[in-house]
This record gives sequence, structure tokens and C-alpha cells, in this order.
Amino acid sequence: MKQIGTHLVVDAWESPTDLLNDPERIRGALVDAVSAGGATLIDLCVHQFSPHGVTATATLAESHIALHTWPEYGYFAADLFFCGKGNPQEALEFLTNALQAKKAKITELPRGFEPEMTSDVTSRYDIEKEPIPVLQ
Amino acid sequence: MKQIGTHLVVDAWESPTDLLNDPERIRGALVDAVSAGGATLIDLCVHQFSPHGVTATATLAESHIALHTWPEYGYFAADLFFCGKGNPQEALEFLTNALQAKKAKITELPRGFEPEMTSDVTSRYDIEKEPIPVLQ
Repeated sequence: MKQIGTHLVVDAWESPTDLLNDPERIRGALVDAVSAGGATLIDLCVHQFSPHGVTATATLAESHIALHTWPEYGYFAADLFFCGKGNPQEALEFLTNALQAKKAKITELPRGFEPEMTSDVTSRYDIEKEPIPVLQ
Repeated sequence: MKQIGTHLVVDAWESPTDLLNDPERIRGALVDAVSAGGATLIDLCVHQFSPHGVTATATLAESHIALHTWPEYGYFAADLFFCGKGNPQEALEFLTNALQAKKAKITELPRGFEPEMTSDVTSRYDIEKEPIPVLQ
């Protein structure tokens, strides 16, 4: 696989309800998490839902961070996708601390693609062991 | 697990270089993919990098779609996170067709959290079988 980026998929819970329903604190936490991760913010959208819940998407020069909160469950979902420079783990540590999550499930996904098959037999075999869904 | 949403993690390649470097066509494909998925667009950011590459983040009432392209590899990464109404598979099918990807690896992740342990012994055992990292 040619890895292009690293994606942290985060489900975190046992966070304070009021914190997860406060768009300004979430905005601040996200901006500071971007800095903590050494990333560059291009655009930020923070939206509060009625009666509760906040969604925030940060478009980065390095890819993105997305955050969705469900205050009624003390739960938030975060995605931190970084390519190139920056450290998504640092950004995540800042974010989970700022949002006071006591529990989290974190999955690290390498993102990228399978280069074309070559005449190299070993490479071809490796690819065949993990078939790739073909669209169209 | 209490499932809150469904997240499609998509790595797709063998797309035309010029298409992946065209912010207006990507904007159009994303807006139409949101409609195809029956979702509601709150905000859209499309950014073109120099010398090539486009990032687009769509903030949805249902969560988000993020798209990052690397035209030099014919590769794009897409994330479609939907909660509540809407159909992320429909949105994805539209997007991969619009961007003419010939190959794709798609992973479907349920997003949500583990409810607190109860006095029920079976539930407790289930949770202990899959330990959850504890932060702080």
C-alpha cells in the first residue's frame, strides 16, 4: 500500500453534557487542537443543532478534523485525518482532554491506495490475497 | 455498542488526473452526492492546493462528507459519516461514479459508544472481552 495519510477514528464518551453543547468552547478546543497537532487551518464551520448537539469541521492544509457531539449521551465522534506534516496524535490528545472524555475508542487507519500490479510475482500475490472491490 | 451513525471510509484510485484537480467539478459532484444520499448540506468548503490537489468538506445536518484528492496519483480519500436519515451508500455510489474511480477500498465503520456497565454479568463480561482504552 502506498500510504498517503493517517486517520484517527475516535469515539469518546463520558464527557460533560454542557461542554458538548457549547459551540464556542468546542470552536476553541478545535482551533487549539489544530495548533497542538502542528497543522494549518484553512476553514472552520461550527454548527449548533436544536435542541442539542454541535458539529464542527476543520478543513486543514493537511486534510481535516471533524467533530460531532451528542451531549445527551456524553458522546462525541472525532476524525483526524492528517497527511504530510503535523501530528494527529497530539491534536487528539489535546481534543480529548479539552472535551474531558473519560473513555475513548481510537482506531488508527492508514489511508492510501494499492499501486498497480507490476510484473513482480510477489507483489501480485500480495495484492491477490486482499482482493480490492472494483467499482463499475 | 450503541450505534449513533455509519461511517464509510473510502480510498479510491484510477481516477482521471484532470478531474481530481478541478475544484468546480468536485464541488458539483459533492453537492449532488449529498442530494443523492438524501442528506442536508449546512456548509461547504472547497480548496485547491498548489500545484495540485483539492480538499472539500461538506458539513451536513447528518454529520459530514470529506474529500481529499491527489491528482498525481489518480487517488482520492473520501469519508461519509451519516447519522439519522440519509443513505451514505447512495452518496458514495454517486461520488465514485462522478469522479470515475475504477478501484476503491471501502470500509464501513459503525460509530458510537459502549454504554456504561450495568449489574448484568453478561454485559460486564462482554465489555471486558474488548477492553476500551481509558484516557486521563
